[in-house]
Amino acid sequence: MPHITLPDGIPGIRSLVMYRPDTGQHLYELAQTLLRAGSPDSTLTNAERELIAAFVSKQNRTDFCMNSHAAASRYLYADQRALVDQTLLNPDSAPISAKLKALLTIADHVQADARTVSDDLVTAARAEGATDGDIHDTVLIAASFCMYNRYVDGLATLTPTDPAAYEAMGERMGTVGYQLPKAGNAASSSTSL
Amino acid sequence: MPHITLPDGIPGIRSLVMYRPDTGQHLYELAQTLLRAGSPDSTLTNAERELIAAFVSKQNRTDFCMNSHAAASRYLYADQRALVDQTLLNPDSAPISAKLKALLTIADHVQADARTVSDDLVTAARAEGATDGDIHDTVLIAASFCMYNRYVDGLATLTPTDPAAYEAMGERMGTVGYQLPKAGNAASSSTSL
Repeated sequence: MPHITLPDGIPGIRSLVMYRPDTGQHLYELAQTLLRAGSPDSTLTNAERELIAAFVSKQNRTDFCMNSHAAASRYLYADQRALVDQTLLNPDSAPISAKLKALLTIADHVQADARTVSDDLVTAARAEGATDGDIHDTVLIAASFCMYNRYVDGLATLTPTDPAAYEAMGERMGTVGYQLPKAGNAASSSTSL
Repeated sequence: MPHITLPDGIPGIRSLVMYRPDTGQHLYELAQTLLRAGSPDSTLTNAERELIAAFVSKQNRTDFCMNSHAAASRYLYADQRALVDQTLLNPDSAPISAKLKALLTIADHVQADARTVSDDLVTAARAEGATDGDIHDTVLIAASFCMYNRYVDGLATLTPTDPAAYEAMGERMGTVGYQLPKAGNAASSSTSL
């Protein structure tokens, strides 16, 4: 049961951006810019950006964001979709690049206490090919999901339990991206972000 | 020493939004909207919004954000500026309203683990006069500073140590607000957000 009066039956952050669209607009535009475009020299794919988002959401134990961004990452990885769940289970043994592993380690430190992102961790990521843009974007994705996760959890928004609901969200996030719901269009948008 | 190459001598988040202005624009617009306007029924003043931001930044131990938003709150509280430092030192004994104390308790839970914001905490805030908008805005301010703090700390940005630098920032934040620095105007903007 949400802590404030939100549109009925609308899950997660979508109910919140409908409650306060003026902040919601900036929250969605940030997600769209950060998860669908990179710093000029960044090598991160959109699938990898969504995977970092899902990983941080898992560390914060925010099921809604973890499930929806994992679904988006699976959709974008297509044939390689299995590696999303392998990474969320254990990044060390997952079949992902050493560069992405090093960036996930940085994301993990940002989530727990960003002051512990050390020169050594950054040097290790650079040794695997990470650019300034990769390091920047990883830190900002991890930081921003520490916001999105808390926003969703702190107001106790609706978290669907049906995996099919997340698959539908993931496909929409992987194709349309992040767009503010239109007023009066709540029902038809209930399974998307 | 920042972890990536940033504009020389520019402190905190300002150096980051100059590095990547497309995300920076949304980060500044979010701050401007959330800290200078409220949900329709919110009773929080701009001074109180800045105080919540400074309080969360203190809990995250992000000196740059704590000092700059404390300075903005002092500027906005004007004659009552002393209560900012009293609140940061000990909210329970500070001369602030019971409503604001209850909202700071919610902000504290959002910072530590947003899943612990309980019905009881929300009921206690409502008993002191907090509206849906106050609860929403408090949660989003606390959540967003868990992002801004991590962004600034995770990339090890420059943190000025001179209190006068923060006083200048606070006055600018209290008057002009949050505006993206113009390209090529780095030097003249080095003491503002």
